[in-house]
Amino acid sequence: MATFAKNVKKKVYSYLGPAGTFTELALAQVPEAKGAVHKPVLSVADALADVLAGRAIHAIVPVESSVEGGVSATLDALATTEGLRIYAEYLVPVNFNLVVRPGVKLADIKTIAAHPVAYAQTRKWLAANLKGHKHLLATSNAAAAADLFENDRIDAAVSTPNITDHYAVKVLAKNIADNKHAQTRFIEVGKPGTTPKRTGSDKTSIIVELPSDRPGALLEMLEQFAARGVNLSRIESRPIGDRLGRYRFNIDAQGHLDDAAVAEALMGLHRFSPKIVFLGSYPRADKQKSEHEGNNSNTEFGSAEAWLKRIRSK
Amino acid sequence: MATFAKNVKKKVYSYLGPAGTFTELALAQVPEAKGAVHKPVLSVADALADVLAGRAIHAIVPVESSVEGGVSATLDALATTEGLRIYAEYLVPVNFNLVVRPGVKLADIKTIAAHPVAYAQTRKWLAANLKGHKHLLATSNAAAAADLFENDRIDAAVSTPNITDHYAVKVLAKNIADNKHAQTRFIEVGKPGTTPKRTGSDKTSIIVELPSDRPGALLEMLEQFAARGVNLSRIESRPIGDRLGRYRFNIDAQGHLDDAAVAEALMGLHRFSPKIVFLGSYPRADKQKSEHEGNNSNTEFGSAEAWLKRIRSK
Amino acid sequence: MATFAKNVKKKVYSYLGPAGTFTELALAQVPEAKGAVHKPVLSVADALADVLAGRAIHAIVPVESSVEGGVSATLDALATTEGLRIYAEYLVPVNFNLVVRPGVKLADIKTIAAHPVAYAQTRKWLAANLKGHKHLLATSNAAAAADLFENDRIDAAVSTPNITDHYAVKVLAKNIADNKHAQTRFIEVGKPGTTPKRTGSDKTSIIVELPSDRPGALLEMLEQFAARGVNLSRIESRPIGDRLGRYRFNIDAQGHLDDAAVAEALMGLHRFSPKIVFLGSYPRADKQKSEHEGNNSNTEFGSAEAWLKRIRSK
Amino acid sequence: MATFAKNVKKKVYSYLGPAGTFTELALAQVPEAKGAVHKPVLSVADALADVLAGRAIHAIVPVESSVEGGVSATLDALATTEGLRIYAEYLVPVNFNLVVRPGVKLADIKTIAAHPVAYAQTRKWLAANLKGHKHLLATSNAAAAADLFENDRIDAAVSTPNITDHYAVKVLAKNIADNKHAQTRFIEVGKPGTTPKRTGSDKTSIIVELPSDRPGALLEMLEQFAARGVNLSRIESRPIGDRLGRYRFNIDAQGHLDDAAVAEALMGLHRFSPKIVFLGSYPRADKQKSEHEGNNSNTEFGSAEAWLKRIRSK
Repeated sequence: MATFAKNVKKKVYSYLGPAGTFTELALAQVPEAKGAVHKPVLSVADALADVLAGRAIHAIVPVESSVEGGVSATLDALATTEGLRIYAEYLVPVNFNLVVRPGVKLADIKTIAAHPVAYAQTRKWLAANLKGHKHLLATSNAAAAADLFENDRIDAAVSTPNITDHYAVKVLAKNIADNKHAQTRFIEVGKPGTTPKRTGSDKTSIIVELPSDRPGALLEMLEQFAARGVNLSRIESRPIGDRLGRYRFNIDAQGHLDDAAVAEALMGLHRFSPKIVFLGSYPRADKQKSEHEGNNSNTEFGSAEAWLKRIRSK
Repeated sequence: MATFAKNVKKKVYSYLGPAGTFTELALAQVPEAKGAVHKPVLSVADALADVLAGRAIHAIVPVESSVEGGVSATLDALATTEGLRIYAEYLVPVNFNLVVRPGVKLADIKTIAAHPVAYAQTRKWLAANLKGHKHLLATSNAAAAADLFENDRIDAAVSTPNITDHYAVKVLAKNIADNKHAQTRFIEVGKPGTTPKRTGSDKTSIIVELPSDRPGALLEMLEQFAARGVNLSRIESRPIGDRLGRYRFNIDAQGHLDDAAVAEALMGLHRFSPKIVFLGSYPRADKQKSEHEGNNSNTEFGSAEAWLKRIRSK
Repeated sequence: MATFAKNVKKKVYSYLGPAGTFTELALAQVPEAKGAVHKPVLSVADALADVLAGRAIHAIVPVESSVEGGVSATLDALATTEGLRIYAEYLVPVNFNLVVRPGVKLADIKTIAAHPVAYAQTRKWLAANLKGHKHLLATSNAAAAADLFENDRIDAAVSTPNITDHYAVKVLAKNIADNKHAQTRFIEVGKPGTTPKRTGSDKTSIIVELPSDRPGALLEMLEQFAARGVNLSRIESRPIGDRLGRYRFNIDAQGHLDDAAVAEALMGLHRFSPKIVFLGSYPRADKQKSEHEGNNSNTEFGSAEAWLKRIRSK
Repeated sequence: MATFAKNVKKKVYSYLGPAGTFTELALAQVPEAKGAVHKPVLSVADALADVLAGRAIHAIVPVESSVEGGVSATLDALATTEGLRIYAEYLVPVNFNLVVRPGVKLADIKTIAAHPVAYAQTRKWLAANLKGHKHLLATSNAAAAADLFENDRIDAAVSTPNITDHYAVKVLAKNIADNKHAQTRFIEVGKPGTTPKRTGSDKTSIIVELPSDRPGALLEMLEQFAARGVNLSRIESRPIGDRLGRYRFNIDAQGHLDDAAVAEALMGLHRFSPKIVFLGSYPRADKQKSEHEGNNSNTEFGSAEAWLKRIRSK
C-alpha cells in the first residue's frame, strides 16, 4: 500500500469544516471515503469549488436542517453552479454537548461560546441549568471548543459529540439539545458521472424555475408530478435573486431517473419550465420505498408503451 | 353488372340507410367511395357488422348531432365491439325540405309523415305554416317520402335535400329546419389498419372507463390530458350498462397519435383506466389546427427527450 | 266523477304513459300520489307542460336508464324550460315479460311486438327461445301488449310486469331481460317550491354550461366540486344545440343545498359558468350517505366560519 | 427628558437594530412612527417580545430579501408566537456604500469589515476594486462602520447609506452592490387589532401546515386558492422543526380578508389544514392591484350569494 501510494494520488473529500463539526460526522458515514483524505474547508462554496477544480473527488455539505430549514448557501450554489451532481445523502442526528477545559465545573460557568445555531437549539437547557450566563458567538461548533483555549474568559462551549477527537475538552453535559429528534441532512456532491443505480428506495433532486407570466404556475408544476403519481418529499422556494417575487424551487421527488414515472415527469417539467437543473438520483438515507401511486410503476409504464406500439402498428 | 362482377370485386361502403337520408350525403363526401358500391343497411349495428365480416370495406354512420347529441347506437357499438377503427369524419348540414306528391299544394296538407327527430327539428316551421296538421311517424327521413306513395292519407313528408334523387316527389318548401346551423357528424369506420397520416389538424377518438373506486376519478382523467396540454373537443358519458352510476367516456382529443403530447396522454390513460379503447386518429372535418398548449409541441417533446438522454448519459 | 269534482279538486300526477309502462311503476312508488289522479300523457314534454300549466301538481318522467343512458327528452326539457324543480327520484328495475293472448303457446309464436328499447334488451333471450321470429315495432311497452288485440298477425309481445293490470294477457315467460340488474331512474318534477329537507342522504341536480372560451373549462368546473369535497354521482354532457362542440352538463352532486359544501360549490359554479340551472335537492333513492370528503362537513364549515369571524373582529 | 417622560408616554417602535441598518430605513417610511421613539433591539425575537409585552406598539423587522430569501428568524417567530399581526409592509432598496475614516483613500485599504450578507452582495465590486483585501466579519452593517473606530487594522467598511447619520465616516464609493435591484421587505408587526382597510391593492399573509398523511397535500392546498381565483405572491416552506420532512408554508395571497374570494379561500384552508395562522391583511407596498381571476370579484360573489338565497327560498 505504501508503495502503491507513492504512485497514486489519494482521493480527497472536501467538507464544510472545521474538523469536529457535524459535517465531519456525515463524511464519516461515506463508505468510499474510508482511507481517503478528508479536507475541511471554510465554506460550502469552497467545498464545491474543490470539486469543480478537481481538487476533490466529492464534497460533503449540509443541505437541510430539521430545525433551521434549507441551507441557503448550498441550495443557491447548486442552483447557480453548473456541473454538479448529488450522489448520496446522509442524516446526522443533531446532538450537542457542553464541553469545558479539564477541571471546570458547572458552578464555575459564566460565559459560554456557541455558534448561533447551536445556541438557539440549546437555549432551554442553558437557561434552565446556567442561569445568567453570557453568550459569546463562535464561527462554528468546532471553533466554540477551540475558543476555550484562546480566550480565558470563556468557561464552556456548546459543541458536537465528535469534538473530543480534536480538542482536549471534557464533556460536562451530554445531549443538551432542546429537540431530541433534530437531524441535519448532508449531500455528497461531485461532477456529473454515472448516476447511482436505482434501488427502489431513491430520491431525485431538481431545481425548477417557474414561468413568470402565469399565475397558478406552481400548481401547474405540481400537476406534472401528480399526473405521474410522483410524490415530493421536499419542496423549498429560494429567491432567484434578481428581484422580489421571483422564485426557484428546490425539489426532492420520490424515485429514480430510471423510474419511468420520474423520467416522464422530468420531461414534462423540462417543457414547462424556463429552467430546470437535474441534480441527481440517489438512494434515500431513510431507506423508505419510493413507489409511485396510481398504477405508475415501471411495469405499468411498460404495458402502456407496449399498448401504444400495438395501436400504432395498426 | 354480372359481367362486371366476374372480373372485379368492387369496394363496398355500407351506410345507415335507406338511400335518401343524411348518411348518404355523408358518404357522398368520401373521396375513396367514388365509384364504389354504396350499400344502405337498416341499422348502425348492421353497418358495423358488414365491416367486421368483410362484406364492406368501411361503414359510414352518424355519431353526433348538434341538436340531438351523441348517437347512442354508434357510441355503444364502438365501445363494445372490438376491432373497429375510425378513419375519417364528415359534417353534413341538417336541412329539411317539405316534399309532396306532384300536384299537392300547401293548402291541401292535413297529414305529414316525418321521422320523430326531423319532426322535432321542424316543429316551429310546421306549426307556423301548417296549423292543425296531423303527424304520422316514419322510420327514417327517406321512409317519410316513400310513405307518400304507400299511404294515401299522407299529404306531405319532411325529408332530406337528396330525397329527390330517389323518389318522384316535389319540393314544396326548402330549408324548413328551425335551427339553420344544425349539423350531424358522421364517421367512416373500418377494421384496424394504417392510421391516417398526421396533418396538424387532427382528432383522436378514445373510449375510457373510470376506475370505479375513486371519487374524483373524472377530474384525474382530465388531468392526464391537461398535464400534456391536450384539449378535448368532445367528452360524452355513456352508461357501461351493468348498473346505474357506472360510465364510460367517449372522448375526442385534439391532435394525432403521432403528436407526442397525445401519445403520452394515451399512455397515461392506459395506466389510469381499467379499460381504454383507441378508436383512431384522423383529420378534423373542420380543418382547425390541433395545437397543444403550453410548450407541448413535438419539437418541445423532442428537446425534453434529448435533455433526458443527456442527463442519463452522465 | 262530476259530483265528486264539485267538492274536491283531486291532485293530478302526469306521467309518461301509456298505463302499463315502467313510468307507471315509478309513480306507484310516490307516497303522496296515493289516491291522486294518475294521468298518462304522450310525451315527456306533455307531462312537464301539465306541471307548468297547473294541470298537474307533479310529473313523473324517466331520466336515466342503466342500459340506454340519459333520457334526452327529459334532460333537454329540464335545461331549456324555466320554472321546474326535481322533488324526488325513484328507481324501477327493468324486467320484461313475454305476454300473449290467452291460449297462445311458445311454439305458436312467429311475430313479436316490442318497443325497440325493450327488444334490444331482450334480444338474447328471444334469439335463444324464439328462433326465426319476426319483430314488429311498438310505440311503447304498453302498446306492444295492446297490439295483440289489434293485429292478428302478432303472436306475442314484450311488455312490463304491470301490463296484466291493464290488458287480459297471459304471461308466457317472466324476467326475460338479458341484463338482470337493469334499472331506470325516474324523477318527480314540479314547479319551484319548498326544497325537500336535508336527510343526510341527498342529491343535488344542476345543469351547467361551460364558458366557451377556455380550454380546460371542464376540468376547472370539476375543481369547483373537488375544492369542497363534493363528489358527483352523475355527469352527462348534452349538446346546447346551437352548433357542434358546445355542451351543457347535467350533474348530480352528492349532498343537499343545505350542506355548506354543496352551497359553496354551487356559488362557485354560478361565478364560473355563463349559465347554471338549479334543479333541486332531494333524497337519494338508494339511501346512500352523502358525505363530503376532506373535512367538509357542516360542522367543519361552521368552525371555519367562526374562525373567520374571530380573525375579522380583531 | 425625565420631566417629559413623567407626563407623556411616547409611542415606541422597536426595530431590528442597531441604528444605521436597513431596518431603520424601513422604519423611517412608517408615517405613524414620525415623532415616536425608535428603539433598536438586538434580534427579531427581542423586537417581537417588546410588542407582546407592551413595551412597543409595533415592531419593524425584515421578512424577505430579494437576494437571500426569507428571513428565517422572522418567519419562524411568526409561526410559533401567538398574538401577532402584520399591519404594513415596506420595501427598502439594498444599496451599499464603502465607508472609511476621514482621510483614508482607496489605495490604503487592506482590510474591510462587513456583515457576511453585505460582503456576499458586494463581492464582485470588492474583488474588482480592492484586489487582495482581507475581510473581517461584522455583526451588522452598522457594526461594520463602528468597527472602524474600534479596530485600527480595519481600513474600510461596507455599510448602509444612512450610516453617515450615526458615524463620522466618509463615503468612498457609493452603490457598490453587485445587484442594483436588490430589495428587502420589512413588516410592521403588532398585537391583534383592527385590520387595515381594504384598498383594492392588498396582501394577506398566512401560515399553513399541511396534513401529513396525504401525498399531494401541497397541490390540494394550492387548489383552495385556485378555486377562488386567488393568486399567491409568495409561498415559502419552513421546517416545522420536529423532524425532517415536515413543513409549514408562509404564504402571501393577493387580496384582503374583506375580499370574498380571500375569505372563502381562508375558510377552505381552515378546514383543510391541521393548523393555520392568520397574520394579517394590509396594503401592498408595490401598490399593484389585487384582483381575483375568473369572475371572483366581490360583485360576483355577491350575485352568487343572492342567487343561492333565491333558489333556497323556493
